[in-house]
Amino acid sequence: MESISFDSLLQLLADGRMKELQTQLTGMNAVDVAEFMEEAGADRLPLIFRILPKGLAAEVFSYLDSDQQAVVVDSISDAELGALVEELYVDDAVDFLEEVPAGVVRRALANATPATRDVIIRFLQYPENSAGSAMTIEMVEFHSRCTVGEAIAQIRRTGVDKETIYTCYIIDDSRRLIGVLPLRHLLLAADDTPVADIMDLNAQIISVGTHDDREKVAEIARKYDMLSVPVVDYENRLVGIITIDDIVDIIEEENTEDMEKMALMVPSETEYLKTGVLTQARSRIVWLLILMISATFTGQIITGFEHSLALFTGLTACIPMLMDTGGNAGNQTSTLMIRGLALGEIHTRDYLRVLLKEVQVALLCGLALAAVNFLRMLLLDWLGVQPVGSMMTIVVVCLAMVCAVVVAKCIGCTLPIAARAVHLDPALMAGPMITTIVDALSLLIYFSLARLLLMG
Amino acid sequence: MESISFDSLLQLLADGRMKELQTQLTGMNAVDVAEFMEEAGADRLPLIFRILPKGLAAEVFSYLDSDQQAVVVDSISDAELGALVEELYVDDAVDFLEEVPAGVVRRALANATPATRDVIIRFLQYPENSAGSAMTIEMVEFHSRCTVGEAIAQIRRTGVDKETIYTCYIIDDSRRLIGVLPLRHLLLAADDTPVADIMDLNAQIISVGTHDDREKVAEIARKYDMLSVPVVDYENRLVGIITIDDIVDIIEEENTEDMEKMALMVPSETEYLKTGVLTQARSRIVWLLILMISATFTGQIITGFEHSLALFTGLTACIPMLMDTGGNAGNQTSTLMIRGLALGEIHTRDYLRVLLKEVQVALLCGLALAAVNFLRMLLLDWLGVQPVGSMMTIVVVCLAMVCAVVVAKCIGCTLPIAARAVHLDPALMAGPMITTIVDALSLLIYFSLARLLLMG
Repeated sequence: MESISFDSLLQLLADGRMKELQTQLTGMNAVDVAEFMEEAGADRLPLIFRILPKGLAAEVFSYLDSDQQAVVVDSISDAELGALVEELYVDDAVDFLEEVPAGVVRRALANATPATRDVIIRFLQYPENSAGSAMTIEMVEFHSRCTVGEAIAQIRRTGVDKETIYTCYIIDDSRRLIGVLPLRHLLLAADDTPVADIMDLNAQIISVGTHDDREKVAEIARKYDMLSVPVVDYENRLVGIITIDDIVDIIEEENTEDMEKMALMVPSETEYLKTGVLTQARSRIVWLLILMISATFTGQIITGFEHSLALFTGLTACIPMLMDTGGNAGNQTSTLMIRGLALGEIHTRDYLRVLLKEVQVALLCGLALAAVNFLRMLLLDWLGVQPVGSMMTIVVVCLAMVCAVVVAKCIGCTLPIAARAVHLDPALMAGPMITTIVDALSLLIYFSLARLLLMG
Repeated sequence: MESISFDSLLQLLADGRMKELQTQLTGMNAVDVAEFMEEAGADRLPLIFRILPKGLAAEVFSYLDSDQQAVVVDSISDAELGALVEELYVDDAVDFLEEVPAGVVRRALANATPATRDVIIRFLQYPENSAGSAMTIEMVEFHSRCTVGEAIAQIRRTGVDKETIYTCYIIDDSRRLIGVLPLRHLLLAADDTPVADIMDLNAQIISVGTHDDREKVAEIARKYDMLSVPVVDYENRLVGIITIDDIVDIIEEENTEDMEKMALMVPSETEYLKTGVLTQARSRIVWLLILMISATFTGQIITGFEHSLALFTGLTACIPMLMDTGGNAGNQTSTLMIRGLALGEIHTRDYLRVLLKEVQVALLCGLALAAVNFLRMLLLDWLGVQPVGSMMTIVVVCLAMVCAVVVAKCIGCTLPIAARAVHLDPALMAGPMITTIVDALSLLIYFSLARLLLMG
């Protein structure tokens, strides 16, 4: 599959051949139409939006960025805005209204039908990143007394308005969720079978609460290979579903968030190219400052040893190597931990097992590094490139290397697991954070060894 | 939803109440049964597997780890193994056979039917991580001349064996893929409509080739919100599909791989707790060694300045702070780049725009850091904790700080984008790699400034 070239479409637009453009766009995927509108620029956005058929227009709208959505909304009448809000799935309408200025929200709500308005207002009140804020209400639900024939007829009658018809939900008189029915089972059953007889008989119905974190939704959907996850309220009444396309987006957003936290930025939901310089600087400066100030400790340790450093040639030159190796070793371990914890492959109860393994891995890596470093320093000394005062200096560096790697890997596995244990996000205990601590400890060990072995 | 407690099940197993255990397990989700079998341990694995109903057994088998699959396979007869392979979806059978020893593969193939054997052998030949190796052949396909009524009848007749029936594919006489038909459209149409009339009329049918990278599959499915992605051969003939549950797994695996590469490990597909110490050490030592040896340059730079360092109090103490801040600043930028490139939000053509933005962000962050550092060093000097020789030393450190941040952010955005431009994986150009380069450059700048301003 080749990606579409927009050049011919832009040419049609430039030539004002709107009828032909309309035909072309109508045959395209909504995702690609949205991409084309972005390419065409804000000026021409309203013009293009206006020629889209109504159903496609709403779908395309849901794929536009909030800036572009705002441009479109500004260009249409109140009646058109009302119709657009009705046409959108509730989750897309809520996504849109969460991002735009309050004035637009008021205008949109004022022009929606009372029923839609009520639903949207309720949804806007769910906490950010909760299952409630991500769900949609357009699901297929049957009463448990319904038969297969009635169920299929109902789908054929109302299916177009549902976000997915592929998993149906069975509810009782009080709207409590009592079963799940994949459309596949429905199609394969005889018409007069009650749906209650063919619904999934799992002892446990897999669902999430409205206030659960959306991360949990992604975890469950991934674990159980679900096409949609039902959302229930505190009385187990079915209030909505979250569909797999949104779950895939949640997974990618959570991954981005984890990576940004691991690189010590304040996570942002906006794409890089769409955020301003100030916003970017603000999201990065906090941790840079904190870690810079923490480096006072490292500076302190060096200051305390500065006179001795001047006496022993070669010791200072090895500081960056020791620090970097420790940092890299710790970063490897913390990344494995953060990822393992996020995917549910590592649990806090595994801590001792993990620690034991990391110590062994650290000893293997540390000894290999020390051996290579020994040869490296001998060679550099012999070449006269980086002279070392004595053989003992090399021994000190190699020993410090092994210690630094062991310490780094121990801290690298301890901090993320400890964070999880006290319900903090393990992703914050990543490379840069660990580097700062490992730096200080490695230098302390390095200088202590030097004092012991060189100044005995 | 609470996660299931396995204690009562383990008790049933210990008491030998197999009938009751069977009833319990039959009502459970295959994912949970697989988890329970893992918990019960390898000894009891064959016993539990044996009491599962045939359909559930194959599904549970596909969720077991390859170690556990090997235990099960060793415990069953040739005929049972043959039946199991037939029962599995082709993609699950291939996943299983890719991981087990050659002896097991031979035994499994010898006991499968000739048709299954041919398909599996063909699938095992697709390159690792290709769309072909991840696809399944159990899809619903109709000839374009088929009517809606015939299509629905065909689904009701054969649907049970299909991995997903929710997206159907329309092929012509030569099996070429000519259209896609969501089951939803099929259900909502009149029985005598030809399927060709209601299939998606997109100018472009979204599909992937058998040799395309599975990362591309994930990208397409995510972009177009697809429930399954069709796989075609070089003549555009439909040969298989990849379903959304596998795509979600691919997305998570690709994310893990990126994070592991960013932490400079050789990516592994095995869970952390399931890999041995030696394997872990091997996947980490390569880059640790490379970067340690690269630190020779940094050592070199310090050696060349060692005598001057001894003369100016306070300069050495600031080395770790400068190095860490540079590394952290570069790490932030490279993470944003790697993620943006992976999600298709940043392209190589955006390089100049990105560079300009990063320079501005770097100047803002650098100046803020320098200002705080100025005060920090003044305070520490005044307290007598970290004395500095002269005000000029502080100025040198602050100037070096701004330069280090700018250099770090420029390298942090340049390397990942350059890697993408020459078709290398940007994830390799992450924090640790950049730190090593930034360290050397920051020290060079630092010492040059010191030479210029302190020794005039």
